[in-house]
Amino acid sequence: MPDSMDIPTIRFIKGKIEMIDQTRLPAEYVMLSLSTVNELCGAIKRLSVRGAPALGVAGAFGLLLAVEDRWRRPDACYFDWESVNASVFPKNVTPAEIAAVLNEAAETIAKTRPTAVNLFWALDRMKKICNLSGPSVPDLLHALHREATAVYKEDLEMCKRLGANGAELLRDGDTVMTHCNAGGLATSGYGTALGVIFSAVESGKKIQVIADETRPLLQGARLTAWECCKRNIPVRVACEGAAGHVLSKGLVNCIIVGADRIAANGDTANKIGTLNLAVIAGRYGVPFYVAAPSSTIDGSIASGADIPIEMREEDEVKSCFGVRIAPDDASALNPAFDVTPNELISGIITEKKIYYPPFENLGQSG
Amino acid sequence: MPDSMDIPTIRFIKGKIEMIDQTRLPAEYVMLSLSTVNELCGAIKRLSVRGAPALGVAGAFGLLLAVEDRWRRPDACYFDWESVNASVFPKNVTPAEIAAVLNEAAETIAKTRPTAVNLFWALDRMKKICNLSGPSVPDLLHALHREATAVYKEDLEMCKRLGANGAELLRDGDTVMTHCNAGGLATSGYGTALGVIFSAVESGKKIQVIADETRPLLQGARLTAWECCKRNIPVRVACEGAAGHVLSKGLVNCIIVGADRIAANGDTANKIGTLNLAVIAGRYGVPFYVAAPSSTIDGSIASGADIPIEMREEDEVKSCFGVRIAPDDASALNPAFDVTPNELISGIITEKKIYYPPFENLGQSG
Repeated sequence: MPDSMDIPTIRFIKGKIEMIDQTRLPAEYVMLSLSTVNELCGAIKRLSVRGAPALGVAGAFGLLLAVEDRWRRPDACYFDWESVNASVFPKNVTPAEIAAVLNEAAETIAKTRPTAVNLFWALDRMKKICNLSGPSVPDLLHALHREATAVYKEDLEMCKRLGANGAELLRDGDTVMTHCNAGGLATSGYGTALGVIFSAVESGKKIQVIADETRPLLQGARLTAWECCKRNIPVRVACEGAAGHVLSKGLVNCIIVGADRIAANGDTANKIGTLNLAVIAGRYGVPFYVAAPSSTIDGSIASGADIPIEMREEDEVKSCFGVRIAPDDASALNPAFDVTPNELISGIITEKKIYYPPFENLGQSG
Repeated sequence: MPDSMDIPTIRFIKGKIEMIDQTRLPAEYVMLSLSTVNELCGAIKRLSVRGAPALGVAGAFGLLLAVEDRWRRPDACYFDWESVNASVFPKNVTPAEIAAVLNEAAETIAKTRPTAVNLFWALDRMKKICNLSGPSVPDLLHALHREATAVYKEDLEMCKRLGANGAELLRDGDTVMTHCNAGGLATSGYGTALGVIFSAVESGKKIQVIADETRPLLQGARLTAWECCKRNIPVRVACEGAAGHVLSKGLVNCIIVGADRIAANGDTANKIGTLNLAVIAGRYGVPFYVAAPSSTIDGSIASGADIPIEMREEDEVKSCFGVRIAPDDASALNPAFDVTPNELISGIITEKKIYYPPFENLGQSG
């Protein structure tokens, strides 16, 4: 599979963040161009970019955008980050001022979404660059650009390694169910749960996908099905309510989902509805795998009980593409994530290895 | 609660069937007026009327419509079914001709939806009237009208008795989750699963409802929430994916769902997604009740494995209110029902009694 199949989920180009507006797929393929941290935060909140690994990349690029936005010159449409020098950057700016701008932006960006740990992880990586002692301003800017680029590139490489690790679990002819979108659109461009499927297909196995549509925002129907179609992988969309029927009939060989945060004991926060699938898979003996980069493991959290769950606007549930589907007087429950307890997870596929139960001290022993 | 709260789901008035077009709720409250069996079949197939008990009533009224349609006089806008006599009805028609028209219409109507047994049950009741020996034509027409009216009225009374039986299970302050719509709109006008809730509320208990939205056609969000709002019962709509989270957090005291067909061993076919709820309820120790009239019990079927499951159009999943939500190249799985095995059911609430496990020979011992 050529790298040209990778999806340009998010890029930092000419001092701006470019990203696919995922809210408009599959009907429209629209690239957003973001110039400010506020624009980025808006895009994250309304899920134009989403998926834990992609949010990490967005955070890292967002801190470059903060510098760009603060010191953007009226006469230059962008810094040349690759060869930034004193003649381009305002002469009187100090590394401390840059660090202050970064820290403020990091705080703003971190507030957008509370559950996925990769966002905080990437922001921390960038902030650490500022803490390196005594770089010149050009050196600091170079280092920041290198670090953000590394977050992006490492994610793409991570996906490929994770995919290859997980592909061993799939047999020729398997039907794999997945939830939400843990594909190229949720990462730098290849995917975690879908990366496993793509890797298996690239190695010559025939795989069919059942995409759980994933209300309220339908990332499974809209994004996962779109990615599979792009790669000519047969995909069927199913409403979430169909999972019990489909699994009880033996139509699924295994389930693979992504993750937004994994606690040290393996408890996994992922898109709302994941827990349903895990419970049903447990009843019908269908293997249930989580696929995520090791940066999604939060070793500082002992169990899933400590993972904050984002509650989103009621209107996401009460409306669907602008059509009101519930009476005005009804309320709605809209938790964005749920936590699957470790005992329902058959394995956690990372770029390093596949962890099998019992899951203990994940993220601490590496 | 006055009877005026009952919903005019379906009526036979002036030789036509009038029904609420449930596809347009809650945005629009539109009454359909159907003059022919073909119009009725169209309305059933596109779910303008749905719900096992309401389908039974639709079937019975549909056979009156068949007679009306065949012998409708150009100079009379409708038969007076209550006082039909030889001067109104064509003189040369024989009871055998009426029976033939009924049988043909019954066959057509029975083909619309395969899973709910109440439709076949009501058609059979009507056909049996034709088999009574030797009535005059006016007597036969009277008897058919009386029988269809009885199907309708008995359903309303059944709902009230069923509701009162089930209400004993609910405590003041309970939060009850339900799936799809088993309310007034699914019956002659009061409801089965919702009837239990309405009855508890009428007896002074405070009950909150969580309505599973029930993709693809969102009967929970659209219809159940609408009925609860009409009765000032607090209702929150939740996507089906949220059930695991909501039940694991202890936010639900019990689940009550309707049924489309119950086998002799208690296995229950109901709207797709019911099995998911039952499995999740089992894991988290939440009581899971089925509420249905005894006419939904099909004693001729030993287990759920023998219940035919209707597969519906892919487009119901791939689109939502006319908006395409999945790529054209993706397929969709759209089973309309699933079967919940008896061991996941805490009790079956009928108008006669509440059956508790083990469920044996239901529909045979009465």
